[in-house]
Amino acid sequence: MFFIGIGTALLAAAIHFVVEKLAHFKFDLIKHYFDDCAKNNCLYQPALIWMGINLVITVAGASLVTFLQPMAAGSGIPYIKAYLNGVKIPGLLTFRAFVAKTLGVVLSILGGLACGKEGPMAHSGSIIAAGLGRGRINFCGGKSISFYSVFRNDHEIRDFVAGGAASGVSSAFGAPIGGTLFSLEEAASFWNQDLTWRVFFSSMVACFATNFLISAINGDPTKLTDPGLIRFNAFKFDLKFDLIEIPFFIFMAVVGGLSGALFVVMNYKLTVFRKRYLNKNWIKVVEAGLVAVVSAAVAFGLLVGINDCTDKAPFDSHAVTAAVYCTDKKHNSLSTLFLTTPEGCLKALLHDPFESHNPASLVAFVLIFFVLGVWTYGLSVSSGVFIPSLAIGAAWGRLIGIGVAYMMPDNPNLQLDVGKFALIGAASQLGGILRTTISLTVIIVECTDDISFGLPIMIVLMISKWVGDFITTGLYDMNVEVMGIPTLPFESPPLCEDLRASDVMSAPLATFKTKEKVETVYEMLKDETFCGFPVIEDDSLTTGKGKLKGLILRSQLLVLLKKKIFCPEGQVPPRNITIKDFRDFYPVYLKVSEIDLSDEEKSYVIDLKPYYNPSPYTVEKKFSLSRVFNLFRGLGLRHLIVTDEKNVPVGIVTRKDLAKFRVGSKRGLVKIEQLKIQDK
Amino acid sequence: MFFIGIGTALLAAAIHFVVEKLAHFKFDLIKHYFDDCAKNNCLYQPALIWMGINLVITVAGASLVTFLQPMAAGSGIPYIKAYLNGVKIPGLLTFRAFVAKTLGVVLSILGGLACGKEGPMAHSGSIIAAGLGRGRINFCGGKSISFYSVFRNDHEIRDFVAGGAASGVSSAFGAPIGGTLFSLEEAASFWNQDLTWRVFFSSMVACFATNFLISAINGDPTKLTDPGLIRFNAFKFDLKFDLIEIPFFIFMAVVGGLSGALFVVMNYKLTVFRKRYLNKNWIKVVEAGLVAVVSAAVAFGLLVGINDCTDKAPFDSHAVTAAVYCTDKKHNSLSTLFLTTPEGCLKALLHDPFESHNPASLVAFVLIFFVLGVWTYGLSVSSGVFIPSLAIGAAWGRLIGIGVAYMMPDNPNLQLDVGKFALIGAASQLGGILRTTISLTVIIVECTDDISFGLPIMIVLMISKWVGDFITTGLYDMNVEVMGIPTLPFESPPLCEDLRASDVMSAPLATFKTKEKVETVYEMLKDETFCGFPVIEDDSLTTGKGKLKGLILRSQLLVLLKKKIFCPEGQVPPRNITIKDFRDFYPVYLKVSEIDLSDEEKSYVIDLKPYYNPSPYTVEKKFSLSRVFNLFRGLGLRHLIVTDEKNVPVGIVTRKDLAKFRVGSKRGLVKIEQLKIQDK
Repeated sequence: MFFIGIGTALLAAAIHFVVEKLAHFKFDLIKHYFDDCAKNNCLYQPALIWMGINLVITVAGASLVTFLQPMAAGSGIPYIKAYLNGVKIPGLLTFRAFVAKTLGVVLSILGGLACGKEGPMAHSGSIIAAGLGRGRINFCGGKSISFYSVFRNDHEIRDFVAGGAASGVSSAFGAPIGGTLFSLEEAASFWNQDLTWRVFFSSMVACFATNFLISAINGDPTKLTDPGLIRFNAFKFDLKFDLIEIPFFIFMAVVGGLSGALFVVMNYKLTVFRKRYLNKNWIKVVEAGLVAVVSAAVAFGLLVGINDCTDKAPFDSHAVTAAVYCTDKKHNSLSTLFLTTPEGCLKALLHDPFESHNPASLVAFVLIFFVLGVWTYGLSVSSGVFIPSLAIGAAWGRLIGIGVAYMMPDNPNLQLDVGKFALIGAASQLGGILRTTISLTVIIVECTDDISFGLPIMIVLMISKWVGDFITTGLYDMNVEVMGIPTLPFESPPLCEDLRASDVMSAPLATFKTKEKVETVYEMLKDETFCGFPVIEDDSLTTGKGKLKGLILRSQLLVLLKKKIFCPEGQVPPRNITIKDFRDFYPVYLKVSEIDLSDEEKSYVIDLKPYYNPSPYTVEKKFSLSRVFNLFRGLGLRHLIVTDEKNVPVGIVTRKDLAKFRVGSKRGLVKIEQLKIQDK
Repeated sequence: MFFIGIGTALLAAAIHFVVEKLAHFKFDLIKHYFDDCAKNNCLYQPALIWMGINLVITVAGASLVTFLQPMAAGSGIPYIKAYLNGVKIPGLLTFRAFVAKTLGVVLSILGGLACGKEGPMAHSGSIIAAGLGRGRINFCGGKSISFYSVFRNDHEIRDFVAGGAASGVSSAFGAPIGGTLFSLEEAASFWNQDLTWRVFFSSMVACFATNFLISAINGDPTKLTDPGLIRFNAFKFDLKFDLIEIPFFIFMAVVGGLSGALFVVMNYKLTVFRKRYLNKNWIKVVEAGLVAVVSAAVAFGLLVGINDCTDKAPFDSHAVTAAVYCTDKKHNSLSTLFLTTPEGCLKALLHDPFESHNPASLVAFVLIFFVLGVWTYGLSVSSGVFIPSLAIGAAWGRLIGIGVAYMMPDNPNLQLDVGKFALIGAASQLGGILRTTISLTVIIVECTDDISFGLPIMIVLMISKWVGDFITTGLYDMNVEVMGIPTLPFESPPLCEDLRASDVMSAPLATFKTKEKVETVYEMLKDETFCGFPVIEDDSLTTGKGKLKGLILRSQLLVLLKKKIFCPEGQVPPRNITIKDFRDFYPVYLKVSEIDLSDEEKSYVIDLKPYYNPSPYTVEKKFSLSRVFNLFRGLGLRHLIVTDEKNVPVGIVTRKDLAKFRVGSKRGLVKIEQLKIQDK
């Protein structure tokens, strides 16, 4: 857990450093051409350079993701949520995914896409954790270096991944508590105090190490003033609030909820459209390139079109400011928003002094960033949606702040408060898009670094969530749904009380006897895709019926066959295998096709007795569905054997059988859908 | 949930107001006599008055708790933990307990005991929640007013209590996130996102309303500057820290862990001694009175004995300062520590300027408060251990701070930093005593109101927990253990892998057929104390053996008998009863002795078919104990039926059967104990 924290922090600091340096270089270059060409009438030059840089870098990033590991697309958080919920997702935690994700997010940001690096950090942290847990690196050719193997089982790896995700969030936002909650909230079924402490420890280490490294990059390692990649806390005034302001905040929360829901709906339509028509790899890459060029073109157009000159120095002294047509040492205020990374843009919106940005340019910014945000999320690039959401919200929050300040010109404090309104706007927009669960609330409060002001932020997040939930599900849940991942909700669907286990189970059932012919096992594994098989009593008269003895996993059977743990009937098997042999094959499961058996071997007998699990969880077939649900959620099961009254297995319930029943509550109506689950 | 939050906040504000006013009055009176008598040589007067006031008030408080509802003794947090863990505790959530707890804590603090009101707030909040959930007030004579009954089942009430406990903590500390975590951590087995939001909502409301009310008491309701009863955030300087300070903090954490463990060990011995020898009610009251008198006497002795004069104004401008022998407008610095509530004392230690308190008086204070704290916790009075722990830690933390400042006289900042060292000391002492789980960490960070400084606090809490855990369990866990409450730990004991369900189950078993003679049911209820009975198939040949059909609860059977839902054999029962009838009897369960049956009625037949639960959780008797454990924890079960291979029930496993196996890991060694569980 310690090394997970350190690893994540190193990664975070490295990404931060590389992105900042390269982005600064890029925008400096563009600014240079801008300022030169505004005088010499050659503005096509910066436009072409800008679009060209964006296109090349984004296409590189999109190709990396699309061809190396498509799992690395998007923020990764929906996948991590599903994984912690108990779903196996092949390829999610591999070295390839790590490369695609990490390099990909650097390229996406440099490519000028409206995206952040916070979601990908959680994913990368998880991969680091899984890698450390497995103690093995797999290379492309199937070769691997193995260090240790004690942690190689699903349960341990899941715990590590929980720690990794927490560390990722923690080092991204400097929010150790929020990060811990984030991963525990998703893994709630398997929560226990011990795990909590371990996860908390790793996210503390991550936060601390990130703080140290970034402070070191900034020149003073012992000051420890930068706990995360992004902070909202640099306000020049105290964040105080008065009861009188609460109605304003509530109004903003409602706006955030509505616009968040609009974001989700638009992105949903787009995602479905993409799934249906844009599913070729080259199309994906082309689309990403197109978005990058359009982003640059639109930003260029705004910079040239809106001549919003200001002489207020921007908050960030390193910000790139382009004059364009402005004179007298003024600069175009939009340049501080567009000639920077999305994070820099967010900072500018929160902290720039009053009157830095005029309302017209803010309106244009909101509209354009909203559309670009919707378009970008779901591209086949590594990208997070956190920062763009916050930036959109900060922009319209600032707009409202300016409006309030103009309405009450006799209160000079309100001019200082635009940053406060921007912060509230950012929070409510984020709440509306992601339907922030409690962990995200904590993350934002930790980012703000001021708990008294946490209260209005919490209220705003809660209300924007309610408003948004009334219209659609959150963005991540929408993602999970569209991808067809069988996650289980927290509560059993309310209207399925009358259903029984026998109504949802998969039957007929493939079972094994405690001693089984090798050929039977082999053929069964070839024919069926089940992950677990009930083992039944030997001496049953009818085929395939007999009292339940236990459960054996597909992966165990494959290892037994591969290692040839069988012998002619009546003989003692040549040797036993130990848990280490099973671990050697974790998590790269064998395929049936990799097993070679001679005809003689096929007639041998395999004794399952030492290997099957003698106490699998079972239910009677008349058991109510809602209680089956509770068992799955409460114990994190993947399969549950259904037996009849005589303890003879008659079927098996898997996650997919349960996830079929999903209840949507939309616009106040409750409906039950039976989903089609994608088989992978 | 909204009203739970509001109710808790009202209570918190009321307690705060009453305690502050009355305590101020009391200490002003004592100060008056002190200052007068120092000149006129009549110091016996303040001593007698002080001891007298303490004695009377404390005896009143102790009698209230001892005779009205002994469950109200102590902080109540261990009980609430056990309740949320799934244990039924009679009398815990009644109106009597509420009165004893709330009035009791006011009297304890006024009585000069070393205790706080934060733990009791969590308990009171829970009672408010349970009361609102039940929608009924029970009076002493068995009468009650009933408002609504939809929430009357264990599950709903438990959810409400989770919200109430969270609200209590939230309004005590102004820590809505910490409060939410506090109750979720304990109720982890039943966690789901929905409940999280509801709990979070109620604790937000509580925090907000407390803030509003206390701000109103202080004169300006819209300022919202006092979110909780206790805050650490009024530091006059920024809480910044440097990497160089971390080793100091770690050293302090180790000290806190060691002294915390000492506190627990001493209190453990004392508790066992009390349980054995001081178990008469009048002795309990006398002991409480004795502690109160000793507290006053010792404080008086110190004030007179140590003449620590200072002219530094105390942090709190309302503080009572007695001159005693000091002249020139100086006052005795110990008076700001002793002539105040424990909370005021904590505030003084954290915020008073450097050189307010000299090292000798601090040493005396630490020793005395430590002993008094140990002695007070566990008395039959309503008292929390939070504040005294913090005060002890703050005192020696300040001492270390003074030491560091003297060692490096050329760094003037260090003099400002005594408050910081006091805060770290307080946190580490608390961590050492309570072994703060993650929720308490969050509570302290929220109280400090500065997240950057959260990092060292978290480190300190973690280390002091580790050090303490190496020696003993935490104070609350020790309490739960001594009281013999069968809570289940988070993980199954590691060495019980080889045990089977049949090894721990209670057998022989009392079962019912689906149709049973009234007399049989009646006699069984009289003879057995089980809370649930398996119902078996009617047509079995051997008595008491038959396939399992379901499970019926003792409380259901009692209601059926009371409502006379039975009839002569062959007839149809007169009427059915609805869920409302069961709810009417919730939670004041009937006793067998309250049921009156004529001999004719005893020969009737009762049909259990409509009432039993047809899908109880069951396991086979060879099921491994650790998986039984997971079932109990994961699903929050109270009983689990064990069946043989033919689905015939052979035994029942209850919480008590499992809680017998407790693993202590002390001084690095793992041991398993089989505990004796108290039957109540």
